[in-house]
Amino acid sequence: MKPVSIIGIGKTAFGAFTGQSILDLALEASRKCLKNGNVQASRVEAFYLGNFAGPAFVGQNHVAPYVASALGLGNVPATRFEAACASSGSAFFHAWGAVAGGLYDLALVTGVEKMTSQPTARVTDILASAGEVDGEVRAGATFPALFAMIARRHMHQFGTRRDHLAAVAVKNHGNGAKNPDAHMRKVITAEQALAGRMIADPLTVYDCSLVSDGAASALLCPAERAGEFASQPIRVLGVAQASDYLALADKEDITTFPAVRRAGEKAYQAAGVGPEQIDFAELHDCFTIAEIIAMEDLGFVPRGEGGPAVASGFSALNGPKPINTSGGLKAKGHPVGATGVGQICDLALQMRCQAGERQIPRANVGLAQNLGGSGATCVVTILGR
Amino acid sequence: MKPVSIIGIGKTAFGAFTGQSILDLALEASRKCLKNGNVQASRVEAFYLGNFAGPAFVGQNHVAPYVASALGLGNVPATRFEAACASSGSAFFHAWGAVAGGLYDLALVTGVEKMTSQPTARVTDILASAGEVDGEVRAGATFPALFAMIARRHMHQFGTRRDHLAAVAVKNHGNGAKNPDAHMRKVITAEQALAGRMIADPLTVYDCSLVSDGAASALLCPAERAGEFASQPIRVLGVAQASDYLALADKEDITTFPAVRRAGEKAYQAAGVGPEQIDFAELHDCFTIAEIIAMEDLGFVPRGEGGPAVASGFSALNGPKPINTSGGLKAKGHPVGATGVGQICDLALQMRCQAGERQIPRANVGLAQNLGGSGATCVVTILGR
Repeated sequence: MKPVSIIGIGKTAFGAFTGQSILDLALEASRKCLKNGNVQASRVEAFYLGNFAGPAFVGQNHVAPYVASALGLGNVPATRFEAACASSGSAFFHAWGAVAGGLYDLALVTGVEKMTSQPTARVTDILASAGEVDGEVRAGATFPALFAMIARRHMHQFGTRRDHLAAVAVKNHGNGAKNPDAHMRKVITAEQALAGRMIADPLTVYDCSLVSDGAASALLCPAERAGEFASQPIRVLGVAQASDYLALADKEDITTFPAVRRAGEKAYQAAGVGPEQIDFAELHDCFTIAEIIAMEDLGFVPRGEGGPAVASGFSALNGPKPINTSGGLKAKGHPVGATGVGQICDLALQMRCQAGERQIPRANVGLAQNLGGSGATCVVTILGR
Repeated sequence: MKPVSIIGIGKTAFGAFTGQSILDLALEASRKCLKNGNVQASRVEAFYLGNFAGPAFVGQNHVAPYVASALGLGNVPATRFEAACASSGSAFFHAWGAVAGGLYDLALVTGVEKMTSQPTARVTDILASAGEVDGEVRAGATFPALFAMIARRHMHQFGTRRDHLAAVAVKNHGNGAKNPDAHMRKVITAEQALAGRMIADPLTVYDCSLVSDGAASALLCPAERAGEFASQPIRVLGVAQASDYLALADKEDITTFPAVRRAGEKAYQAAGVGPEQIDFAELHDCFTIAEIIAMEDLGFVPRGEGGPAVASGFSALNGPKPINTSGGLKAKGHPVGATGVGQICDLALQMRCQAGERQIPRANVGLAQNLGGSGATCVVTILGR
């Protein structure tokens, strides 16, 4: 397998954009990315599109050739990857594999979701289709409900408290306030987070990520050719995808996700680093409890110690291992299909020292963790400069 | 790139199966395939699922880990590929790339669709979401309407007649009647086809493929290891995917599909053969006119001569180049996401001399062409024994 580099990144802002269609968003991110990599559309050899639910949100299926043809990519292979909230992480993983395996020298990956045109109740239903529809979802579970059960069990088993969850929200809101592309730029206090409107006990509105529109892109080539295109290429040190049961009821223990552990192990192994070598990370905080569990499953802290670690400042912008410097899904926003590649763009911005007000001093090795559903898909990507 | 072989195939029958869920269908085909390849589920390294519209047809998104976990694949990467009616052709193409590139030694590809639980009008709407929703579909075009325009133009430009279209239907119904796994086993006459109920002029009900449930699977490994698993491995000589505009209005000429031509050229080049070396083919006859155009775009006959060629017996079961010996989408059935891998299984059956009553004498090199939408995706696969 050839080493692979990221030679271009591009993102839309994340937010609620009434005037922009799914096509507009995907084209904006893709074009910014091609420009960033100084590559003409006609040179791209394959297009990988992460999109969770274009058909349900905006009625459009078959989205990959729709975007590719409008972008002027010619007749290249253009494919949509769907893996719930890990759709574009999965698209990135497959694009990496194709470049690493020698199939292409230039692959464009874009993630996109247009969610805000649907009313909230419908959004909740569409998101729930990533769970076990014939079982848990039919019984009434929404994703906030599923993660509320996970949080409750984590509290019971490890003593995690609501103020630990709130600490995740406060941190990520603080970081998001420094990110001009974030959906919600609003600093909050722990008191506000704790007093938030209850969504699914113990999760308040501040424990839940945002419903957003947005797109993000990355351009991949073999590392040996990266010098031809980009002045600041980023190395893909390791990337792995793993899967697990959709239903919580099928899992042995709902306070840990086997797919996250497996993807993490394989990505660490490929990168030749361990959790201690990771300088910073973008973790999939669809709910605050998910960030805490990801810290544990990826070995940043021992099991059960995620909550206290966040509260102690371990993962703060100026802490020893900054997490979600972008604001995370919580404040940057969570346009589902765009989130995985969005995380990768945010790692790259830090590694290129282009993260502005939220820039951290040490960003040599970064990790992105993109989760699908209640842990049924996970993609972990480790980047180095 | 390593040469790749198919070491197992498995299919459900295609039809309307009230009692079987999307999971049941995918599991049946996958298990048959693993058994056919004599491979235990725990040895599979990656799962590629082609599915067009599980969310719309049965409410279930995130279908790949849903199937993979129930199948006992452990925590392997499990990904859904969506490319309209070419969804599982695309999944197969990506699985081939990963095995050829050295990522895995055992990859399982399954295509599945469960369509018949929805009323016909809703099925038509769901299928239309693979077209240009913000344009042609909003203006009222369904897929029968789009292909009716294509047929009408082909008639105008090349003199193709309704009895040429009917000849495709008669041939494929005849072949399907010999296939115990076909959805519709009913021999028809040209008179019946011509007198069929009009769906979208000039296409009658006999020019349109079926709405079906079904699943199909194939197991891939490097050719150098095929001997370990299967007594009758099939070689993947070449496979290519290509894309084009969704909207007919964006195409220069609607009587030819650039994505089919491109995918065909690349597959022929990889395989080192031309159209004249293809012994038999499964072509994507979503409508009879599509089979005629595919014959032309793949170079089996000169442009405009597809209709007369079918009428002359060129592609008959006992003709010089048998096409759709399985009955095709027309009679075997068209469970959208299963169709691409289903075609590959049908090629393999002929090449293994297991096609029963429809067995052809010469099946050394076979071609499958899987089309998505009105030509926006195409996957062409060439197999050899």
